[in-house]
Amino acid sequence: MPISVLRLGHRLGRDARISTHCGLVARALGAREIIYTGERDQILLESVNETANRWGGPFSAKYEENWKHVVKKYRKRNFSIVHLTMYGMPVQKVIRRIRKKKNILVIIGGEKVPPQVYQEADFNIAVTGQPHSEVAALAIFLHEYFRGKELGKKFRGAKLKIKPQSRGKKVEGVD
Amino acid sequence: MPISVLRLGHRLGRDARISTHCGLVARALGAREIIYTGERDQILLESVNETANRWGGPFSAKYEENWKHVVKKYRKRNFSIVHLTMYGMPVQKVIRRIRKKKNILVIIGGEKVPPQVYQEADFNIAVTGQPHSEVAALAIFLHEYFRGKELGKKFRGAKLKIKPQSRGKKVEGVD
Repeated sequence: MPISVLRLGHRLGRDARISTHCGLVARALGAREIIYTGERDQILLESVNETANRWGGPFSAKYEENWKHVVKKYRKRNFSIVHLTMYGMPVQKVIRRIRKKKNILVIIGGEKVPPQVYQEADFNIAVTGQPHSEVAALAIFLHEYFRGKELGKKFRGAKLKIKPQSRGKKVEGVD
Repeated sequence: MPISVLRLGHRLGRDARISTHCGLVARALGAREIIYTGERDQILLESVNETANRWGGPFSAKYEENWKHVVKKYRKRNFSIVHLTMYGMPVQKVIRRIRKKKNILVIIGGEKVPPQVYQEADFNIAVTGQPHSEVAALAIFLHEYFRGKELGKKFRGAKLKIKPQSRGKKVEGVD
């Protein structure tokens, strides 16, 4: 079940940390890649890809100039387009239908989402109808889609791995 | 079940958006308040409180200088202290025990978490052992704690309310 995430309208500087969090959450909770549109940010891409490289698993961060091209390309590859927005239908009411789709492009907004995104999406989905965070919405969506199984996901080829502790920190280097 | 969130080590400027997201996620997913430590940020507090005021529900954002005082105070009030950290025990393995606790102070870190936090916490919990985001970790923790019921939460006294749509946006003013 390949899940790709499309993060719209990245802005240099202002969005650096939120966009990084979107990428890391996508990876940690089972997506295969994140595609950023907006301003091209080489440091952002390197930072997310470098984390993926150290912590394992097949994940990559990419840049595309035009979100419409991304949607068109993924639709051709038989991906369903899921747009996360506080204005959409409650995730808890539609997640069963979406779980049947095997390939999903999850779109998360930046500050201004073009109205066309709402039209292009197969599903406009709300993680609560309250204002909060695209980072949290993405996390809850992936968690619901994978039914919590993503929490136990193994990351192949990891150079670093955490050994869970009740107290303190333990990181293991993996050869 | 009152849940309070303690966000450690806020830094003016650099953390503004992530800390705002933490506050909004806390509110949207069922916590009662967020307490920020670190640098005092009046704009952050006003922004989160203003959102709570417009969108309803009993929620407030506060500032405290010293995290230890907060922990001490909440412990006296019979709160369990849950620290979210990638180094902790997997959330999916301990959430049943935590759901039995009725009052919880959820601690989420900033850049540098003092080692003492790991000692003071009753539970150090990981939402995956992967690097990602305190915003996402908080969201998944609350979602797991409330078993998804928080997604249907009503917010009393809201001035604004969204009417879910398959396409487009609809916000209703509430008298």
